[in-house]
Amino acid sequence: MSEKGKLIVISGPSGAGKSTVVRQAMQGRNDICFSTSVTTRQPRPGEVDGKDYFFITDEKFREMVEQDALLEHAEYVAHSYGTPRAFVKQQMDAGMNVILDIEVQGARQVREKMPGAVMIFIIPPDLETLRRRLIGRGTDSAETIEARLVRARQEYAEADFYDYIIVNDDLDQAAAEFAAIIQAEHCRYEERSHWLKKI
Amino acid sequence: MSEKGKLIVISGPSGAGKSTVVRQAMQGRNDICFSTSVTTRQPRPGEVDGKDYFFITDEKFREMVEQDALLEHAEYVAHSYGTPRAFVKQQMDAGMNVILDIEVQGARQVREKMPGAVMIFIIPPDLETLRRRLIGRGTDSAETIEARLVRARQEYAEADFYDYIIVNDDLDQAAAEFAAIIQAEHCRYEERSHWLKKI
Repeated sequence: MSEKGKLIVISGPSGAGKSTVVRQAMQGRNDICFSTSVTTRQPRPGEVDGKDYFFITDEKFREMVEQDALLEHAEYVAHSYGTPRAFVKQQMDAGMNVILDIEVQGARQVREKMPGAVMIFIIPPDLETLRRRLIGRGTDSAETIEARLVRARQEYAEADFYDYIIVNDDLDQAAAEFAAIIQAEHCRYEERSHWLKKI
Repeated sequence: MSEKGKLIVISGPSGAGKSTVVRQAMQGRNDICFSTSVTTRQPRPGEVDGKDYFFITDEKFREMVEQDALLEHAEYVAHSYGTPRAFVKQQMDAGMNVILDIEVQGARQVREKMPGAVMIFIIPPDLETLRRRLIGRGTDSAETIEARLVRARQEYAEADFYDYIIVNDDLDQAAAEFAAIIQAEHCRYEERSHWLKKI
């Protein structure tokens, strides 16, 4: 029996280094992939349908919401985004651990719809480090950075339903912890109790 | 703040290779130790008090049971054995992950007294492999081996409160899973929520 993949939800403040941690952990292995979202916005130049996003119409989006075909969804700047349940399930059935990089609110929706999902909150060692990283990126105004720090505090206060916390101080350590969590989750009693029943 | 160790309970049929898996995982690290039990039996030649066992009197043992100073205890061949709570706590406070290699019944007592303990059930890939390993060891009579296999089936049926199952087919894989479980358990929300509160 080949093993199914797990759904891994990662959240945390912008600048915590979430996708860097995951990409480091993905190196040299082919059983981890990022989920692909659906969106109602137009493709930007160079974006590929089915790779960057599944680009769909407002009608199709509403239909998917009604049919409970999205594990979570949210609005940003007048456009809708969501995680297609069927796509995620298909990847997991093929043995892939599917990574969902979403905010705390969406994560809460996923927790309800997929109780087996593994929820990981990734944070910087402290907010001063976060501030320095955001400044160092050079993409945000001072105002945006302050807004992100306020948002981070809010998310910290709402993050009590996550299973794990990774403090991204040292990248190698954080990536190793991420990989260990996936490996340990595949050893869970519920995942392996069929080994006890086959005797 | 230096991190506390975890209490790791391992159980599984005799011949599953429990202590071999742990010893392999311990190589090159100094944050894992086996617990030392108390016992009322006499030391055998070469056994060292405080290392192999804490050798204590029947009176002292009864006193420890009454004072809830044992995380679990059991009788074998007219002698009593138990896991001293204070010793385990002291090791954990010093950052050691303390391994308790005990039977399912004792593990159930520990689960109640130490809800934070991590329970791992270690099994061979199948009972035919177990039978071959027990025969290969050359220490048990055919009758004893059959009794161990019957006992294994009973334990499998009672093992539903364990957190993890490790199938010891490939030793390196099993040891890696054991290490990953310890690493992941140190990332648990409850272990690290102080990182969220300090902002």
